[in-house]
Amino acid sequence: MSGRVGADVEWKDSDTNSVPSFHQTDDLPYVHKVGKPPKQDLLKEIKTGLKETFLSDDPLKPFKGQSRKKKLVLGFQTLFPILGWVRDYSFSKFKGDLIAGCTIASLCIPQDIGYAKLANLDAQYGLYSSFVPPLIYAFMGSSRDIAIGPVAVVSLLLGTMLREELDPIKQKHDYERLAFTATFFAGVTQFTLGFFRLGFLIDFLSHAAIVGFMGGAAVTIALQQLKGLFGIKDFTKKTDIISVMRSVVQSAHHGWNWQTLLIGVSFLIFLLVAKFIGKKNKKLFWVPAIAPLISVIISTFSVFITRADKEGVQIVRHIEQGINPSSAHEIFFDGPFLAKGFKIGVIAGLIALTEAVAIGRTFASMKDYQIDGNKEMVALGSMNIVGSLTSCYVATGSFSRSAVNYMAGCNTAVSNIVMSIIVLLTLYVITPLFKYTPNAILASIIISAVVGLIDLDAAILLWKIDKFDFVACMGAFFGVIFASVEIGLLIAVAISFGKILLQVTRPRTAVLGKIPRTSVYRNVEQYLGATRVPGVLIIRVDSAIYFSNSNYIKERILRWLRDEEESFKDQPKVQYLIVDMSPVTDIDTSGIHALEELHGGLRKKDVQLILTNPGQTVLDKLHAANFVDLIGEDKIFLSVADAVLTFAPKMEQA
Amino acid sequence: MSGRVGADVEWKDSDTNSVPSFHQTDDLPYVHKVGKPPKQDLLKEIKTGLKETFLSDDPLKPFKGQSRKKKLVLGFQTLFPILGWVRDYSFSKFKGDLIAGCTIASLCIPQDIGYAKLANLDAQYGLYSSFVPPLIYAFMGSSRDIAIGPVAVVSLLLGTMLREELDPIKQKHDYERLAFTATFFAGVTQFTLGFFRLGFLIDFLSHAAIVGFMGGAAVTIALQQLKGLFGIKDFTKKTDIISVMRSVVQSAHHGWNWQTLLIGVSFLIFLLVAKFIGKKNKKLFWVPAIAPLISVIISTFSVFITRADKEGVQIVRHIEQGINPSSAHEIFFDGPFLAKGFKIGVIAGLIALTEAVAIGRTFASMKDYQIDGNKEMVALGSMNIVGSLTSCYVATGSFSRSAVNYMAGCNTAVSNIVMSIIVLLTLYVITPLFKYTPNAILASIIISAVVGLIDLDAAILLWKIDKFDFVACMGAFFGVIFASVEIGLLIAVAISFGKILLQVTRPRTAVLGKIPRTSVYRNVEQYLGATRVPGVLIIRVDSAIYFSNSNYIKERILRWLRDEEESFKDQPKVQYLIVDMSPVTDIDTSGIHALEELHGGLRKKDVQLILTNPGQTVLDKLHAANFVDLIGEDKIFLSVADAVLTFAPKMEQA
Repeated sequence: MSGRVGADVEWKDSDTNSVPSFHQTDDLPYVHKVGKPPKQDLLKEIKTGLKETFLSDDPLKPFKGQSRKKKLVLGFQTLFPILGWVRDYSFSKFKGDLIAGCTIASLCIPQDIGYAKLANLDAQYGLYSSFVPPLIYAFMGSSRDIAIGPVAVVSLLLGTMLREELDPIKQKHDYERLAFTATFFAGVTQFTLGFFRLGFLIDFLSHAAIVGFMGGAAVTIALQQLKGLFGIKDFTKKTDIISVMRSVVQSAHHGWNWQTLLIGVSFLIFLLVAKFIGKKNKKLFWVPAIAPLISVIISTFSVFITRADKEGVQIVRHIEQGINPSSAHEIFFDGPFLAKGFKIGVIAGLIALTEAVAIGRTFASMKDYQIDGNKEMVALGSMNIVGSLTSCYVATGSFSRSAVNYMAGCNTAVSNIVMSIIVLLTLYVITPLFKYTPNAILASIIISAVVGLIDLDAAILLWKIDKFDFVACMGAFFGVIFASVEIGLLIAVAISFGKILLQVTRPRTAVLGKIPRTSVYRNVEQYLGATRVPGVLIIRVDSAIYFSNSNYIKERILRWLRDEEESFKDQPKVQYLIVDMSPVTDIDTSGIHALEELHGGLRKKDVQLILTNPGQTVLDKLHAANFVDLIGEDKIFLSVADAVLTFAPKMEQA
Repeated sequence: MSGRVGADVEWKDSDTNSVPSFHQTDDLPYVHKVGKPPKQDLLKEIKTGLKETFLSDDPLKPFKGQSRKKKLVLGFQTLFPILGWVRDYSFSKFKGDLIAGCTIASLCIPQDIGYAKLANLDAQYGLYSSFVPPLIYAFMGSSRDIAIGPVAVVSLLLGTMLREELDPIKQKHDYERLAFTATFFAGVTQFTLGFFRLGFLIDFLSHAAIVGFMGGAAVTIALQQLKGLFGIKDFTKKTDIISVMRSVVQSAHHGWNWQTLLIGVSFLIFLLVAKFIGKKNKKLFWVPAIAPLISVIISTFSVFITRADKEGVQIVRHIEQGINPSSAHEIFFDGPFLAKGFKIGVIAGLIALTEAVAIGRTFASMKDYQIDGNKEMVALGSMNIVGSLTSCYVATGSFSRSAVNYMAGCNTAVSNIVMSIIVLLTLYVITPLFKYTPNAILASIIISAVVGLIDLDAAILLWKIDKFDFVACMGAFFGVIFASVEIGLLIAVAISFGKILLQVTRPRTAVLGKIPRTSVYRNVEQYLGATRVPGVLIIRVDSAIYFSNSNYIKERILRWLRDEEESFKDQPKVQYLIVDMSPVTDIDTSGIHALEELHGGLRKKDVQLILTNPGQTVLDKLHAANFVDLIGEDKIFLSVADAVLTFAPKMEQA
């Protein structure tokens, strides 16, 4: 039969890298021996460890064994992936990119104007940020589907943090300078993380926390839009739900502007219906994609005809015409705002990165191509650094526009170039036409855009699968809507880290029992049919044993023993304590020390400690620490069944 | 035979807590099925989780089912363990405690005077701290062997941090007030951690980091003593080795005080010889214990006779006579020093706690009794809070004095009371006699005391067992001696955390192969005799799959597949990818998402994903997320051997 695990395995002690020899005898009952594993090469071990941490995707592989000239060409291609695919670029591919580029341009122009407002910046800065960064990204990025530009959550985060330092109206110029400074450092952060291959750091923000944070941010952004939708003049500067709702209710006394409300609500309904249509029929994806631009055109024209702005309907009024001006001299490279810009930049940069990398990965796995996370970060960082020098604020990948880009049939990053050119034309030609666009329409567009960020299905799934994840998600969500975006973020990070720490501090342990008529030992609490072996207590430790949990594990095992002795007083005294180490993937010096203390404690009680199935690394270290000699090599078995067979043979053969 | 793992296990779907039924058929080849496990009760799960985290030692167990009066008595006993053992206290026990108490008193009096100097405080504060805190501890603490009082490392740490805020000579009174404030908050920190059962937090400072930190602190303290030993007047205020050595060399120009050096070095040799004798012959433990007091008496007498103080030998001059004055009104409860005192107190309190808990645990395991870490923290916290109100600075358990206490035959905390009374008498009667004690003798005593903190054996063991631990140890060590105590501590904490994070970010994965003539599948890199199964790639994931590593694991598995396809081009195409989940103790939503992406990616390559031996929790969540339905229930096996048997039967039966 095949299900049998365990073989008489002996390693040669002296020889490194020797081929182990395997003996199998057929005498029954026979017991497997666990010998001493071959020694590991220290340097190789460290090298492997470092490589897995920083170069797990093997970025230098293509460079191996190439001539210097070839290496230079490959280096350029690595930095500018466009060089890799531009030669294979064809007209048929361009057709797809052209359509996709036009579609996302029509979606991004009204969104950009609205998002710039979220960041408390003038409308043109949103458009600027949809011109330069996508161009840079197209040359350096490796995702084919991502649509680059300003996004709602980062705009809100940036706006909230900047407003804490400076007043966006009274200190307008300094506010803009700080925004560029933050953008510069956001880019530097992203570039640095990618360049030093520290991209894995963003993995520490858990998916659950992001779902909650995004949902909370979406609600907060939607609430902020009530100002535009109701035409409220005295609106709170806080972002929490209580302050905002109080503002809305209080403004009702002065009377909301009914014309504004009418425009806003009717177009919001139009946009949501368009969104619904697009969701129901994937072929009609272009309906929600062009609906915003249509809304803008119709509403602007209506206001222009009726001159509703004289009735109190607030309009955009003025957008600076022309291409991005330089802002290189505007960045604070000294003074008190340097540190503040740096802090805001790091936070905004990390959030932007998280969003872009998630989008890149999602679409790459849908189209089955590879994305190098670290290279991607270098590209995003470069585009934001250049952006900060050309009057842009933090740009990143947008969920909604990337999805539209994908569905419109984009093939390469050329769709971003197309979008960028259309935005350029808009800046030169069309911006004066936006003068009469009502603010309410922008509010509707933003609300309909951020609705998609609230991922109810994901939250329900979290609840179903993992309650702890659900708590993290809700913590971030309520943190954002009841306190602030920053506090929500802080909660999300804290819960993510807390989960990791909890995992390594309080691992599970289980008492195992024998499942009748088999040699399988399983958790007695899960398998109620499993029976304990009289005189033997079998405990499985479900984690690597490290300094953070070694003490807990030791005391938990002793507590199991005490409980056992108290609960089963009529049973024979426990003589053997078997610790099943199958899931123990690693151990450190504290862990071995704890085992030594456990061994000492047990000896005082006349209980023998037996280990089963330790992994290679663990066995290595147990030998190095002479722990194997301490308890005796004959106390280490390959399986629980073997150990029971040796010490309680009657039970095992039953 | 018995070594076989695996059984045809089916759970009843509908019924929670139903007894599972086990079928075993004898048809060969037969394959085990992994059914759906019974549902867990959510509330119970959360309750168990919370309980394991905060109440893992079950502190409320004795209270269960008791009358209210009995509960009150038990509550008092919990707070004051002395009530539990004082009734059984006998004269024979007292004899041991008396001898031990006298021994540690003779050791602590000269040490206290020296340690107070390390904290830049007057000598009497060291004695005060050996009077009140040990008394409080004797009533509240549960360790029978610990000796309470000021210790070298905490004194140095406190002195360094306090001096950064205030000048101990020019702003003497404020300096003392800040010291009491820090002591107060050290106590509050300790008490709070214990009371809220957060004691496990100190487990995050790894043993390796502590060994390095202690060693570095010992070297730093010894270097500081060169001032007293050489009679140097202009000594640097920095603690790093380079500044100190420069001070020593520069002072050579002005001529060291040879009388001081003679006294210091000769008594240092005497003390080290005494220490050596005590180490060689455990029965002579009292030799190093009383050597310091003898040195003090002889040297004080010699200086008094020869009036060497007129020759430039620095002496103690004055110790305030009498019992601790109140310092309750001295603590900064407002103003800018509140926050500073708080910060210093938290750090000093945590380090003091780490030391005391380690001592408590060590001796408890040697004498085989239980210590409740959290209760211990409440006791230590209380004693420092009371201490801060009675002119004491941070006290904790001393390694060297506790060892002497243990070897002198202490039975209970009464030895601390004895020591406390002797210190009290010293304060009242003997302090004037210390006037002529040369500072050099105190320096010698401190050097000989801290030498024991340098644990070379432990460092060598770390190197042998775990290189990463060794790096952490050396990082902390060099951080302390080349930078400062605080930076060393920071490095120690950072490396400790870094290790945990690395563990959960970059878990190991291994390709498994079949060990010939068995059904065992093992890492092919370790077992060079193991052979790959043609057309099947078997990968074991050695960690729980969480958000912090899910993406890495997914991409690592895909990379294994690519490498396999590239390296073995002549072999049949890989059709099945088996992921052995035996060591995967848990999974979260991000982990399941990664598996889904893996499944999607593999399907595009026409490779089937197969899971083997998922644990209960993992299986639960895979079902909840409908992942089992996605890949098909027939793709989950109890063992690798079963999976291979099904998909590549020829190979497995070979």
